[in-house]
Amino acid sequence: MSNPSTLLVVTAHPGDFVWRAGGAIALAHSRGQRAVIACLSFGERGESASAWRAGKNLEEIKEIRRAEGQKAADLLGAEVQFFDANDYPLRETDELMQQLIDLYRSVQPDVVLTHAAADPYNMDHPKAAEIALAARVLAQAPGVTGPGEVIGAPPVFSFEPHQSEVCGFVPNVLLDITEVWETKVAAMNSLGAQGHLVDYYTDLGKRRGVQAKRNSGPNLGLPVHTFAEAYQRIYPQVTGELN
Amino acid sequence: MSNPSTLLVVTAHPGDFVWRAGGAIALAHSRGQRAVIACLSFGERGESASAWRAGKNLEEIKEIRRAEGQKAADLLGAEVQFFDANDYPLRETDELMQQLIDLYRSVQPDVVLTHAAADPYNMDHPKAAEIALAARVLAQAPGVTGPGEVIGAPPVFSFEPHQSEVCGFVPNVLLDITEVWETKVAAMNSLGAQGHLVDYYTDLGKRRGVQAKRNSGPNLGLPVHTFAEAYQRIYPQVTGELN
Amino acid sequence: MSNPSTLLVVTAHPGDFVWRAGGAIALAHSRGQRAVIACLSFGERGESASAWRAGKNLEEIKEIRRAEGQKAADLLGAEVQFFDANDYPLRETDELMQQLIDLYRSVQPDVVLTHAAADPYNMDHPKAAEIALAARVLAQAPGVTGPGEVIGAPPVFSFEPHQSEVCGFVPNVLLDITEVWETKVAAMNSLGAQGHLVDYYTDLGKRRGVQAKRNSGPNLGLPVHTFAEAYQRIYPQVTGELN
Amino acid sequence: MSNPSTLLVVTAHPGDFVWRAGGAIALAHSRGQRAVIACLSFGERGESASAWRAGKNLEEIKEIRRAEGQKAADLLGAEVQFFDANDYPLRETDELMQQLIDLYRSVQPDVVLTHAAADPYNMDHPKAAEIALAARVLAQAPGVTGPGEVIGAPPVFSFEPHQSEVCGFVPNVLLDITEVWETKVAAMNSLGAQGHLVDYYTDLGKRRGVQAKRNSGPNLGLPVHTFAEAYQRIYPQVTGELN
Amino acid sequence: MSNPSTLLVVTAHPGDFVWRAGGAIALAHSRGQRAVIACLSFGERGESASAWRAGKNLEEIKEIRRAEGQKAADLLGAEVQFFDANDYPLRETDELMQQLIDLYRSVQPDVVLTHAAADPYNMDHPKAAEIALAARVLAQAPGVTGPGEVIGAPPVFSFEPHQSEVCGFVPNVLLDITEVWETKVAAMNSLGAQGHLVDYYTDLGKRRGVQAKRNSGPNLGLPVHTFAEAYQRIYPQVTGELN
Amino acid sequence: MSNPSTLLVVTAHPGDFVWRAGGAIALAHSRGQRAVIACLSFGERGESASAWRAGKNLEEIKEIRRAEGQKAADLLGAEVQFFDANDYPLRETDELMQQLIDLYRSVQPDVVLTHAAADPYNMDHPKAAEIALAARVLAQAPGVTGPGEVIGAPPVFSFEPHQSEVCGFVPNVLLDITEVWETKVAAMNSLGAQGHLVDYYTDLGKRRGVQAKRNSGPNLGLPVHTFAEAYQRIYPQVTGELN
Repeated sequence: MSNPSTLLVVTAHPGDFVWRAGGAIALAHSRGQRAVIACLSFGERGESASAWRAGKNLEEIKEIRRAEGQKAADLLGAEVQFFDANDYPLRETDELMQQLIDLYRSVQPDVVLTHAAADPYNMDHPKAAEIALAARVLAQAPGVTGPGEVIGAPPVFSFEPHQSEVCGFVPNVLLDITEVWETKVAAMNSLGAQGHLVDYYTDLGKRRGVQAKRNSGPNLGLPVHTFAEAYQRIYPQVTGELN
Repeated sequence: MSNPSTLLVVTAHPGDFVWRAGGAIALAHSRGQRAVIACLSFGERGESASAWRAGKNLEEIKEIRRAEGQKAADLLGAEVQFFDANDYPLRETDELMQQLIDLYRSVQPDVVLTHAAADPYNMDHPKAAEIALAARVLAQAPGVTGPGEVIGAPPVFSFEPHQSEVCGFVPNVLLDITEVWETKVAAMNSLGAQGHLVDYYTDLGKRRGVQAKRNSGPNLGLPVHTFAEAYQRIYPQVTGELN
Repeated sequence: MSNPSTLLVVTAHPGDFVWRAGGAIALAHSRGQRAVIACLSFGERGESASAWRAGKNLEEIKEIRRAEGQKAADLLGAEVQFFDANDYPLRETDELMQQLIDLYRSVQPDVVLTHAAADPYNMDHPKAAEIALAARVLAQAPGVTGPGEVIGAPPVFSFEPHQSEVCGFVPNVLLDITEVWETKVAAMNSLGAQGHLVDYYTDLGKRRGVQAKRNSGPNLGLPVHTFAEAYQRIYPQVTGELN
Repeated sequence: MSNPSTLLVVTAHPGDFVWRAGGAIALAHSRGQRAVIACLSFGERGESASAWRAGKNLEEIKEIRRAEGQKAADLLGAEVQFFDANDYPLRETDELMQQLIDLYRSVQPDVVLTHAAADPYNMDHPKAAEIALAARVLAQAPGVTGPGEVIGAPPVFSFEPHQSEVCGFVPNVLLDITEVWETKVAAMNSLGAQGHLVDYYTDLGKRRGVQAKRNSGPNLGLPVHTFAEAYQRIYPQVTGELN
Repeated sequence: MSNPSTLLVVTAHPGDFVWRAGGAIALAHSRGQRAVIACLSFGERGESASAWRAGKNLEEIKEIRRAEGQKAADLLGAEVQFFDANDYPLRETDELMQQLIDLYRSVQPDVVLTHAAADPYNMDHPKAAEIALAARVLAQAPGVTGPGEVIGAPPVFSFEPHQSEVCGFVPNVLLDITEVWETKVAAMNSLGAQGHLVDYYTDLGKRRGVQAKRNSGPNLGLPVHTFAEAYQRIYPQVTGELN
Repeated sequence: MSNPSTLLVVTAHPGDFVWRAGGAIALAHSRGQRAVIACLSFGERGESASAWRAGKNLEEIKEIRRAEGQKAADLLGAEVQFFDANDYPLRETDELMQQLIDLYRSVQPDVVLTHAAADPYNMDHPKAAEIALAARVLAQAPGVTGPGEVIGAPPVFSFEPHQSEVCGFVPNVLLDITEVWETKVAAMNSLGAQGHLVDYYTDLGKRRGVQAKRNSGPNLGLPVHTFAEAYQRIYPQVTGELN
């Protein structure tokens, strides 16, 4: 249970890993853990409205989003692999699946983060989650081809969608990210194309922080200004201690 | 998050804390933690069929069940307080509620275990859970009278009912109890009146153990023969680390 | 599994056993089985608007509703026991509970029918269901006082509320009542105070009949004009044959 | 409702029809009914870890799994058709769908068994269920090409996944398989590749058996040692009798 | 919120827009609004049993269904666009998706109606809903190619499936269609191939009408004979007034 | 549907009507409608921690909370009736129920607002909702005694609990309260005892406002800075127009 050494984050678009899991990523890095991001598309169609309105073409937009995503990953202290698998709609292909299986086996993650199972505002998000979960199961099987060793059974957490209740997201884990909050803010600000969301996710960080304090046991001693991210476990937690 | 020093278990009947949470209790004791059981009734009507058939009267049966419950608690290493609040049906009274509030404040629990919110086979079980949760909230409020300091916000876990799916119980925590399994078996065997259930709960312990292994991350290293108990969190987990 | 000899129906008000379970009752009677109705109140406040508007007093209205209920039960071929436990709101009391336990033990039902667990249009309905389920569990226990033998574990079915989806009612049993349909119609028509509902429940009987045909296996051979009632099981069906 | 003459079981992998539905299959055979298994893949990648580790190649493994599956089907008294449609991941193709439609029309099943709708541990399981349900609907339509007569509306039951609660599986049917239990054990033991699961599913059979006894009406008279399998209906049960 | 000028209805088959949404369409037309129907297939395989039994071939049947669908749309006062994308099974293709995106952008709907998210009786229905929702999201994005302006965020309503509870359909909107009821009846009667359903949906219209009256606030003043259609919102309602 | 003239808000404690429904109340007042608040307790035990810590006694605290509640109601433009029915725990009594029935009949509300059905953080909240719904049904019945005319069937909306997802709250209505936002802020600030929550609910108002803009149809034209409150309908909406 102690010292998970590698975190794998599978997202549909570059913005997702910043808004939704930036704190968890920065936290892993700050503790000397390896953090790897599998970014399935550049969000070139679905998350780049202002660039399209400014007259950029597809390749230019991909480059912009790649640069932004790389910069945000650098700020968070993570490696990022771009799969360029198209968005709007993101589709599951044999090629994408094999690449992701290979990544799982190469990275041997101890913890996996991805999208929630439903999102009526964006069909790429649940599709990315479906792909992430299927690739994880495939990477566990010796009969599935690919380099490297099969993986174990790392726990998977859904990070928070934009409108939680409508997506059926019920957080059962609140992660205290207070100590890396400034890092998350810096990464959010680095995403030029979607800067208007920084306020929204700053408020959310505060809101989840207040809830973390309200749900804390007597010994936790959270600071006055706590920031948190919300997650939902896919599989039961296995533990040697209830707390 | 480290070293929770006190565990409080609120059950409707004496058998419940053994079958459903005996492992968690023994584990707490084995680590030097204090474990306190609030046993709201003796199960004198609902869990004592053979004693009634043998012609015992109410007071005799209560004494038998009290002795059994005390012995099981001793074996598990826990203190037990019997509230003698009647069973079948267990009812919420102002007196019972105040006694339980006082216990919360006296014990200052770091973790609370109780029944699940529904059980169509036994109406005392959800009632005990409702009482346990309400008393916990009341014990948090300075405006509610009673000796001692108000409590914090200890996490609450539902333990497993007899037929999980029909009770809407979806385990999201699997607690490894392998190291105290023999202690739990001894406590189960001490409950003379309900000995036929030992096999059932032994099988369940193995079954949950297999599932714990299937859900474990690479670093957990569970033993070949793992025994586990299943729990469901009522409130979100607050944590500084995803694992 | 064959030849259940006694049916027990627990309802909040007289109308309920006719609108919601009249077919099942008539079917039991037509097969030589005993059908017993436990009618907890007369529906004197909540289901007697026209009588109140006509200036009747409480006792007069109870007598009217008792006579109607008795007549409907006679038409369906059932015994009916009125508990006169007040409606709007119906409340659980020790006295009512003991009377119902006694009835369970006296009747020894093979099948139990009652209301669904939720109904935002009428708080008496879920309360009657809660009472019926608790009394059934209490009647199983040798430690609960009362005459007669303890009962076994008869299956329980919820009958259909007035607006199914809003009440969370999901039918998983469609009972073919075609052969007793005219009897149900006669019983519905005997309820003078609520005659405007006959059309509504006639349409419902047809609708559930069409669905029964759509869900029938090849061997069932339902007639062209099938009437049905919808039910939801509370406990798993135990069977020696899947069909 | 009486004497269903043909059972069709649609599974993703050979092991599934043994672990999850072996009792229902053996029971059908013991009563002179026809049982047909549609095994969509050989489980060659996802359920054959030890063979891969032993250095077998794909074709060898398929042959091993085919032989095992055939042997288990023989022991249970069922015909088995292997579709060799690949696993990990199993995919819906027009060819597979047409073959399955043809099978439905040829077999004219009275009862259909398949996987549950969700399984976060194995994406082939819900995919097989989706395929089985779609093929059943297509086989009902005169406008869908293929030999033979269209089928009726046979009831469909989901059999039990490996970790029921996490898969959203809520059993509403417990099938008493006591009389064929030894046959199921023999079939389980014939699956060399996955022998470590025999204990797990033996415990499950006992556990579901205890629950069957707890949920039985007074007339059922189940034996002391009852074994059962759990199922969940997809469509409402149509019946002429509540029991 | 006032005067929505265009209604877009996306259905799998021609019958669907009549049975399930004919009232809403006629109501829009009666108020001078534009109503456009996107009919993805002709229901040539799944909804044309009698034509196949009469020996018609595929093209003949498509023409029959097209003519019927056109006539029904004319009666309701709507434009209809047939996509001829095949049914049983309806599949999502890039071509179909682009055509539908183009339609969204051309029509600029203020309200969208489509199927519910689940239907175990007909896999085309949830597939059509999935396509309708994805195309709506894609049509919102400047980065998705196609003529015309991107659309806003029109609310989406699921119309009622054939067996609501089994499909998980929980109506949260009841639309009063009394003033156009005769128009809906005429459109239903124009569908020669499925005339036996007119009674079923007439009863449903009455039933939903009775429920509309039961759920109306004091000021609504619904007529004695009210007819209604049931809908379920996908997204939260945005309003300036609670009522 | 037009011009609802009276709003009734039933809350457990004074703070609730400000934090959760202050916008709706102010909006009603600003439109010349009558708004009446039924405040069942003073929150004297559960929401007055600082006053208890400051050594005030029960009567003093009730007076403080009454004054604060009255002031907030005045600022929002509402009448408030305090029932002084005790909190922590709030209990249903015959007296309270009759008083509330009388209020319903006197006020004849067109819209009712109350708590959500579940809240594991505060048992008074769901109890107040249960009381509000039962009193509404009782007030509809001519057979229930009390002055004034029976009421119709006003729609009921749950307002938002403190931690929505954990309470099972899924908003399906977002009310634009931008035009009265300053009034709500003033009312929030008037609640001296709980001033630390103003930031939390200001953030929530912004957050729900952003979501209202994201869910708005093309014609709604919400302002740049929109504030909103979230609600969940208990009963289906009855309407003459989909929008």
